Parts: sequence; structure tokens; C-alpha cells
Amino acid sequence: MPGFSFAALECGIKYENRLDFALLFSEKPCNAAGAFTTNKIFAAPVRLCRERIGKPVHGILVNANNANACTGDEGYRNVERLTRETASMLGVPENSLLAASTGVIGVQLPVKKMIAAISRFREKLSPAQGKLIPRAIMTTDTYPKECAFSFSCADREYTVAGAAKGVGMIAPNMATLLAFIITDMPARKSDLNAIFKRAVGASFNAITIDGDMSTNDTAIILSPISDSPVTSAEGLASFEEALMAVMTRLAELLVRDGEGATKYVTVSVSGAKNDDDARLAARAVSQSPLVKTALFGNDPNWGRIACAAGYSGAIIEERCLSIAINGITLLSRGIPVPFDKAAMSENLSQKDISITVELGMGNGNAVYYTSDISYEYVKINAEYTT
Amino acid sequence: MPGFSFAALECGIKYENRLDFALLFSEKPCNAAGAFTTNKIFAAPVRLCRERIGKPVHGILVNANNANACTGDEGYRNVERLTRETASMLGVPENSLLAASTGVIGVQLPVKKMIAAISRFREKLSPAQGKLIPRAIMTTDTYPKECAFSFSCADREYTVAGAAKGVGMIAPNMATLLAFIITDMPARKSDLNAIFKRAVGASFNAITIDGDMSTNDTAIILSPISDSPVTSAEGLASFEEALMAVMTRLAELLVRDGEGATKYVTVSVSGAKNDDDARLAARAVSQSPLVKTALFGNDPNWGRIACAAGYSGAIIEERCLSIAINGITLLSRGIPVPFDKAAMSENLSQKDISITVELGMGNGNAVYYTSDISYEYVKINAEYTT
Repeated sequence: MPGFSFAALECGIKYENRLDFALLFSEKPCNAAGAFTTNKIFAAPVRLCRERIGKPVHGILVNANNANACTGDEGYRNVERLTRETASMLGVPENSLLAASTGVIGVQLPVKKMIAAISRFREKLSPAQGKLIPRAIMTTDTYPKECAFSFSCADREYTVAGAAKGVGMIAPNMATLLAFIITDMPARKSDLNAIFKRAVGASFNAITIDGDMSTNDTAIILSPISDSPVTSAEGLASFEEALMAVMTRLAELLVRDGEGATKYVTVSVSGAKNDDDARLAARAVSQSPLVKTALFGNDPNWGRIACAAGYSGAIIEERCLSIAINGITLLSRGIPVPFDKAAMSENLSQKDISITVELGMGNGNAVYYTSDISYEYVKINAEYTT
Repeated sequence: MPGFSFAALECGIKYENRLDFALLFSEKPCNAAGAFTTNKIFAAPVRLCRERIGKPVHGILVNANNANACTGDEGYRNVERLTRETASMLGVPENSLLAASTGVIGVQLPVKKMIAAISRFREKLSPAQGKLIPRAIMTTDTYPKECAFSFSCADREYTVAGAAKGVGMIAPNMATLLAFIITDMPARKSDLNAIFKRAVGASFNAITIDGDMSTNDTAIILSPISDSPVTSAEGLASFEEALMAVMTRLAELLVRDGEGATKYVTVSVSGAKNDDDARLAARAVSQSPLVKTALFGNDPNWGRIACAAGYSGAIIEERCLSIAINGITLLSRGIPVPFDKAAMSENLSQKDISITVELGMGNGNAVYYTSDISYEYVKINAEYTT
């Protein structure tokens, strides 16, 4: 994409011979919008981003294998210094880089090693190296997650491209999720903020893998600052459509790569009293370990779905509740519908599952995306070492 | 215990040759206090108990292997009829029996079979059959859970005895937990209610296995109605102490038998702004799948504990937060304390684990009890058949 260049290094932050330190750089200053963890324990780079996100930004410095969280003032001074020295090497203002980290909590960054590595970014920076960004931020991810869509606006072609990581600890409000989106379409800060917020709500904030929320969640979008930004309703609508496509695709890739996930599950709640209630119910069903283990076992145990909706906090009445799995109604307005268990279990053995919950209380809707819980989830998380 | 008798049958409710239908009976009418699921989808027997709990009660009719939940008006009529016919057989008022069920959701009780079985209770009822009650309510429980304590009051000896079941879906507010407590000490209804409520708060509402909440949770205590109930402060204090001992022991047995549990974990939070905040933090740590899988893997990953406390909703500041595992401090006022990983992992291999979280914000305290998450948890819940 014109104007952006990329580099990634093997810095040995925790492991040798692994890309773990990366730079996403824009020659031109950019408007940036961001969404960050709501966890009260948040990482040093999140603090730094929150301070800088409203000002012109030239790029993002990222590392894997160390979260730089629970590292106190020393952790903050480390990330500040890393961004300052990188900015100096690049010849841009010293506070114009953002930062993001992912990895183990409570360990200081190997800052000497990282400072020494910064000069190597210069020779590596190239517009052709964008593919390295999603690779350099992988931890227990099994594949890099990236996506791009193009759109036209007033006879010009623009692109929205994104990279993301995060497989365990994905929860609403984006736990241990890093996502970096860039576009060459210049947008005003206010437009960028509003459109990005909507796109985050329908993508990264609608997915859950294990219900945990991390200290490092960060989603950032960069758009070049321009004297003549795109402001037409039509242009912004095309941009939002492309951005939504990129972010929902990244969210899907995240869930499909959920730790130990064997299924991709769409939970649609309709007929809630309002959208907030629908989200409560969709989230409770998506997060229930009992629903998720039943799905792993191809078990059409709709009672666990009813149960999760029942404790979600949403307004629910049994006699109004209907539940369907893969389009087959199993509970209809509170009355169980007889079904062929063997056939239904066979039906559930497919990789993509849809759960539909109709509350019959109003017009509120929500869609959540989640995965099942398998043996592999337990294995990965029992063995992920501190 | 004087005044109470018990019976259990193999009724074939779902499986043959398994105790699944039981009666707990008091010759004298009793005061009853109860605590029930907060799930908005609640079983027919829960509805029946809520209606009858304030009136004199002669006993409890219990079945396993069918929850009688999501069964609509037919389910309610079924449990009403079962209690009525049993009361008639016993010669007590028709609305004087309570009921509880556990098992699969959304299937009607095999009511003909159960009605036919009721007459068999008569010959079997015996004060010596109390041991059968915890056995007859087992589902995926691997052992029966029972406990009794005696105490003296004004030169008389009284007993509190209890039976409980419930291994998956145990969450605060007592998910899929059945507990029946009896005492021969006569207490006024108001005293019984107040004391039972406190005991539930410190026992069944302080445990969590997988964070799910069931449709059937029921805890009931029966105490004989008397013209001269125990009302002395001393007597009631002795009773409360015995009741607390029985219920916390039952709660511990429930957690130790948590589905696939290999560890018993005590999570103590102190220094919270208030007790509610302490409960939020203790609950989030206890329920975090990432904390629980780390414990299963003997991984002293205290960052996950900090992270869970951080998203709990409790007021927390990183620089005030301290964390210890098995008495060894790993985070001290926001500063990670270096530790020997191999020794700490060895230390964590023991069966009983304590996690201590000091928030440094005030004087609020809470203790929760939980288990780890193992491969076995996934196996049991993937294969538990609808």
C-alpha cells in the first residue's frame, strides 16, 4: 500500500530464531484511532498508546513473547525509550510511534537487546514486507492472520489492510488481541474514530474464545493525514464497508484459530427486549464451558443453551424461548421438539455450527462468534510456560 | 436422627439398576428454609419449592437423571402430582412435600413409572437409610457427599446432617447443586431463614467449578416445628456453627469432586475496597479458564491471576497489587518477585493450592473455593449425553 513500509526481526526476546520484533511505518503522519483492553491491569504499551493516540502517528512498534504488563514504571520507561530511539532512527518526532506487546506477563523486556536491534529495522524497512507483520506477532497462533479489501471512491482506488493475532484469552472487549489496520484513504480524525468504533463493536468485541480478558488488547487503525481528506458520505460508506469486511474476516480468523478450537460457532440471538439484552444472552451462550464442550462432543444438548441464556441477565421467559441448532428447531416457545439424536449428532460433526436463540421478548438482536473447547485447549494452556 | 426417615429406589428414570428416586421424610411438620437458582430458566420442582417453602413441610421428594426443566406446565403438573400422591401415601397434607430434580434438561419425567414406584417408599422408609440419600442424587459425582456435626444446647444434644450433589455447573449461586440439610433442633422460621442464608453465602455461594449456573439448584434445610423452639443466643450460635461446618464441608466435597478436578484451590482476596469487590475479584480468579488450566499444568503463571483480578470489575491498581501462591509471594505491590520456576512448579504439584490476592485498597475480604480444569473435564462434558 502506498506510503507504508514494514520490517520484522528475530530479536531473541524470549526464543531464538523467531520473528518477534516488528515495525509498521508510515512516511506521512497519520490519524490514528484505537480500542484497548478494559482490564484495570493494562500493559505499559497500552498506557503509551492511550497517551499518544490523538496526535499524529508515524507507525507502530510491536513485539511478541513478552507482554510488558505488570512491569511498573520500569516497563513504561522501557517502551517509551524503545519508541523514542526508533523514532530517532527514522527521523520522525519522538512521540509519534505507538507500541503493542503480547506474551508473558510480569517480565521486563530485554531492552538492551531490543535497543541494539533497532538499527537493523532501517535496512529491512520495505513496502513489500507487510506479510511479515502478522507473522512477527504470533504466539500460540497456528497461522498468520491478515486480510485486505480495496474499494473505489471518486475514481480513486483505496485499500484497507489488516493483521491480527490472538487465540487464547479472546473475549468481548478484545482480550489478548492485537490488530493493526492501515488504509491509504485519508480520513478526518472524527470520521476515523466513529467508523472504527462501529467496526470494532461488530467484529473484535463480538468474539469470545475462553472468556478471559487480557492486559494487552490493542486494535489500531492508521490513515494518512491530508489537506483533502475523503469526507463524502459515499466515500466514507465505501470505506466503512471495506473496514468492516477486513475486521470481521480477521475476527473470524481469530476464532477459527482459537486455542484447541475444532469448530466455528455463530450464536445469533433475536427477539431480545433490546440489543444490550441480546448481547448478554449471546455472550453467555458463547462463553459457557458446558455449551462449548457439548459442541466439541457433537452433543445437541440444547438445555445447556437455554440454561446459559437463563443466567445471562437478559430478560427471558421459558414459554417464549426457542432454540435452533444448524437451522433445526429443538425448543419451540418453551416446548421441546422431538428430534433424531443420532442424525442431529451427525449434523453437529461439521466444522461450522450456527446456534439461533429467539427470546420472543422484543426486537433486540446480536451475533457472537465463538469456538468449542477441546482437550487441546486444556493442553495448550496447561503447558504454556511462564 | 430422631424424627426423620429415608428411602431410595431404583425407578429406572433414565438408567436401570441405579438409585434415582428418593424420599426424605419427617413425621413432625418442619420449618423449611431454602436457597434456589437465580437462573431465569428454572426447573418445575424449583417453582414448586418456592411456592411451598414458607409453610410446614414434611419432607423432600428427589429424583436424579432428569432435571424436569424446560418442561413447561406439563412438567409442573408432574411434580405436583408426584408430591401429592406421595403425601397421600404418607398421610400428610397434600402440599407438605418439597421436591428437587437433577439431570438432563428438556425431557418430561417418566411419570407413570414414578407414580407406580411411590408405594414402594412405604416399606423402605427407615431412620437407618439416611446413607442412601446422597447416593440416590448422584449424576456425574464420583462419590456421595454427606456430613454431620453434633452440638449441645441447654444440656441437650442436637445434630445437623446434610447430603449434597453437584459437580459440573457449580458456580456462585449454586449451579446444579442439590443440598438437603436436616436438624433435630427446633428453630423458629425467622432464625432458620437468617442462619441458613448466612451459611449458604459462606459455603455453596463461594464455590465455582466451571462458572455455569444450572436451572435446578436447590438447598433446603428442615427443622421440626415445636412449641418450645431453641431461641437462646447461645443455642442459636452453636447451631450456626454446626450448620456452617456441615455446609462448608459439603461445599469442599463438591469442589474436590468437580468434574475432572485434580486440585482443590482456595482463593483468598483481602485488602479490597469492600467485601463485594473482594468477591468480584475472588470469583474472577476462581472462574478464569486460563488460571485453572495453568494450575492443572503446575504453572506458577501469576500474570493470569493479576489479569483476572484486573477484569473482575473490582477496584484495582497495579502498584498496590500483591499475589502469593502457596504462601510464596510472586508479585509484591506491583513488582514481580524473582522465583525459582522449577521449585515453584514442584510446589504446585500438590493437590491443595492456596492463592492469596492482596489488593491494597481497603479492608474487604472474600474466600472462594475452586478446582482446576483438566482434560477429564472436557471429556466428561463432551460425552455427557443428552
